[in-house]
Amino acid sequence: MSKPSIPQGTRDFSPAEVRRRQYIFNTLRTIFELYGAQPLETPSMENLTTLMGKYGEEGDRLIFKILNNGLHEKKDADKEKLNSEWNNIVSRPYSTPVVTERALRYDLTIPFARYVVMHQNDIAFPFRRYQMQPVWRADRPQKGRYREFWQCDVDMVGSTSLINEAELLCIYQTAFQKLKVPVTIKVNSRKLLAALADLCGMPEKMMDITIALDKLDKIGWVGVANELKERGITDDGIWQIERVINVKGTNDEKLVAYADIMQHSAMGMEGINELGKTLAYYGNLEFGISNLDSEREKNIVVDISLARGLNYYTGVIVEVVCSSEAVKMGSIGGGGRYDDLTGLFGLKGVSGVGVSFGIDRIYDVMEELDVFPKQLAEGTKAMLVNFGGENETYALQILQQLRAANIAAEIYPDAAKFDKQMKYANRRGIAYVLLPGDEERQKNMVSVKNFETGEQKMMSVGECITLLKS
Amino acid sequence: MSKPSIPQGTRDFSPAEVRRRQYIFNTLRTIFELYGAQPLETPSMENLTTLMGKYGEEGDRLIFKILNNGLHEKKDADKEKLNSEWNNIVSRPYSTPVVTERALRYDLTIPFARYVVMHQNDIAFPFRRYQMQPVWRADRPQKGRYREFWQCDVDMVGSTSLINEAELLCIYQTAFQKLKVPVTIKVNSRKLLAALADLCGMPEKMMDITIALDKLDKIGWVGVANELKERGITDDGIWQIERVINVKGTNDEKLVAYADIMQHSAMGMEGINELGKTLAYYGNLEFGISNLDSEREKNIVVDISLARGLNYYTGVIVEVVCSSEAVKMGSIGGGGRYDDLTGLFGLKGVSGVGVSFGIDRIYDVMEELDVFPKQLAEGTKAMLVNFGGENETYALQILQQLRAANIAAEIYPDAAKFDKQMKYANRRGIAYVLLPGDEERQKNMVSVKNFETGEQKMMSVGECITLLKS
Repeated sequence: MSKPSIPQGTRDFSPAEVRRRQYIFNTLRTIFELYGAQPLETPSMENLTTLMGKYGEEGDRLIFKILNNGLHEKKDADKEKLNSEWNNIVSRPYSTPVVTERALRYDLTIPFARYVVMHQNDIAFPFRRYQMQPVWRADRPQKGRYREFWQCDVDMVGSTSLINEAELLCIYQTAFQKLKVPVTIKVNSRKLLAALADLCGMPEKMMDITIALDKLDKIGWVGVANELKERGITDDGIWQIERVINVKGTNDEKLVAYADIMQHSAMGMEGINELGKTLAYYGNLEFGISNLDSEREKNIVVDISLARGLNYYTGVIVEVVCSSEAVKMGSIGGGGRYDDLTGLFGLKGVSGVGVSFGIDRIYDVMEELDVFPKQLAEGTKAMLVNFGGENETYALQILQQLRAANIAAEIYPDAAKFDKQMKYANRRGIAYVLLPGDEERQKNMVSVKNFETGEQKMMSVGECITLLKS
Repeated sequence: MSKPSIPQGTRDFSPAEVRRRQYIFNTLRTIFELYGAQPLETPSMENLTTLMGKYGEEGDRLIFKILNNGLHEKKDADKEKLNSEWNNIVSRPYSTPVVTERALRYDLTIPFARYVVMHQNDIAFPFRRYQMQPVWRADRPQKGRYREFWQCDVDMVGSTSLINEAELLCIYQTAFQKLKVPVTIKVNSRKLLAALADLCGMPEKMMDITIALDKLDKIGWVGVANELKERGITDDGIWQIERVINVKGTNDEKLVAYADIMQHSAMGMEGINELGKTLAYYGNLEFGISNLDSEREKNIVVDISLARGLNYYTGVIVEVVCSSEAVKMGSIGGGGRYDDLTGLFGLKGVSGVGVSFGIDRIYDVMEELDVFPKQLAEGTKAMLVNFGGENETYALQILQQLRAANIAAEIYPDAAKFDKQMKYANRRGIAYVLLPGDEERQKNMVSVKNFETGEQKMMSVGECITLLKS
């Protein structure tokens, strides 16, 4: 028998890991509910036709397809079709409902759009939903990149109001503050990126400019300028872009300067106006909180080099990075406004805005910063030693009283050697060991040993409960 | 564009459904933790070799296999192999790592065994784990049977003590009491079923006898007797089985009567002894709870016709059915003792016992009994009407104060027509609508409308918070 293993890029989550992940999920869930967002869950499998063609060629290739079942039971005529489809699969990047009718969810956005279209008559718009589920991608696994990983999205669809954008900024702030992860939230607008292309007199080059600018953090302005040149931007265009990049100051100062440079681009002015309004709404929301953390005002930064990969964003875009210098990690969240997501499935004119939390990366950052609450590791608070016979019976009765008082407790199920039982309690990291021996049973008491201090004291079960609950 | 749809046998879960499902999961999670069980999560995909051959021929057929990615990129020599494996797939029930290396989880038990073997040196035994995750089966979908459904298992491995069996009975009791689902918990032992075959003098016929007996509820004794005859049991054997079936009375009385009939079967006496001990342990545990619900003693029933399909059980077995006459539903939970689960992956001698909760069926039963807490449906407690302009600004500030006081609240994001906003609040089932108009803003107050009673009153934001929290 070969040693068992799990597929590359997938993970088992140990008890300690599950508890920490649950802590993240529950923290986010609580905040989303507070903001009026509603939970949604979609199936792991979607019809192949729902997913294919939505994520570009690369995406199509990385979608996990599920082999149809019972292929050997098909009639001969159908098998001919099967075989010819198979020949397609092995000769080019191709998939077919005859061989694979279903595929695993690739992100949460397309299934959400599909859901909205299918249930458009049952949904009260504007619809705010959150969704926290795994997605699967056949990417080459590497550090921090998995083939099964969790996405967590909040989207607000059916409203063009920039209050939605501001609310999402608040959600980010509240969430990362609760999780104790210091962040910088970068905001930009696709419209400003389009205006940059206008400035260069090359509106068709917007994607090229965006791709080059996105590397500013990594390769600096000289590198970006070179790439812009390679991508066919004129010297004058590059100079225009440099003017914009060089704008420094507060968010308001930046927007004023951009407005000066972009005054002839209607698109640019629209983007500036939207960013300004979003930040003003955000300020109003923050103003409502009496115990306002002053740091919260400063960590939202207008950053015109922010791109966001996906093509479907049309307005404000946003990205979250951890601002602690101790942590090297890319984006831990991002999102933006999209104008026509559900159009993919035939429902036009539903604008939306959404953000995403990169659960796996947030987990890693929290580990590095050591900000998970300590008590999460615990689980069982007390273990009753099993001395067998009448003492075992006595222990079982105590055990259930502890649980009735909401204390997580267990008994060592076998009357094993004392050392073995203590070793188990130690490995589990159980805080208290309870010793119900002959003397304790006769006195109707129990000896309680604090595993950390080594202290041991005999007391009544009531006193024991009080101690364990303190 | 064709109308979007989801694969047969899968489901979208609407916000109300997700909340109710979460309520079940959270209730169970809390109880499991109280009993010292630890959470575990395994990947959705397992290596095909981990799953194949573990669930019988039918199981192999129903496992969802994932097509390997990038098949078109293989070298020609590899493609020959691919094509020959493909021919196997279309000609017989067969799968191969060349075409499909991975498959979707079929249950939680085999991945758990695989995990225990892989992590045997890190685990403190006895190991109690719970796991709540979806599984996938290519079964023909029908009412109450899905292709993606949720399992929830608690297992205790590495101990042969019957305290574990008793603890699991307590977990069942506590869980279904909390969920307000009245249940009967049937217990039996595989050893008693083996002893029945001994009684007939046909130990090799145990499976036949078990399969026939399992239908007692459905087809009655005459039907079972006929089937036993068809399956080759002698008339004397059938008479012996009838004697056992006819035993009535309390659990203790039944066990005494079985002991009388089976006194010459060592296996039978062992089974009786184990059942007796399990029930005694259970009694000790229950005795520890001061506020003992007297019903809880009576709903555990020794039932010798209880079979449980799976072959791997070796000792006590258990099954839960809803005892309300209003609900027609099969088993909503079950499990038992298995002696060699991890042996499948090369680790011998690890005994375990586990039970499972049928989440989807429990959900359906709770719907039918109407026992979900009413407040689950809610979500957002208050909506602020958006009157635009300065009133919008004022509303945003109130909004965030509500949230800071842990009240789930939202603002209608657009200054739309009043009727439209009210209609939205109504469809969402929001309890309170807050009206921050000119007068309210000038007085620094807010009008609060109770959507159910229609009552409306102006008050300070502080008073409003007090009202909404009450």
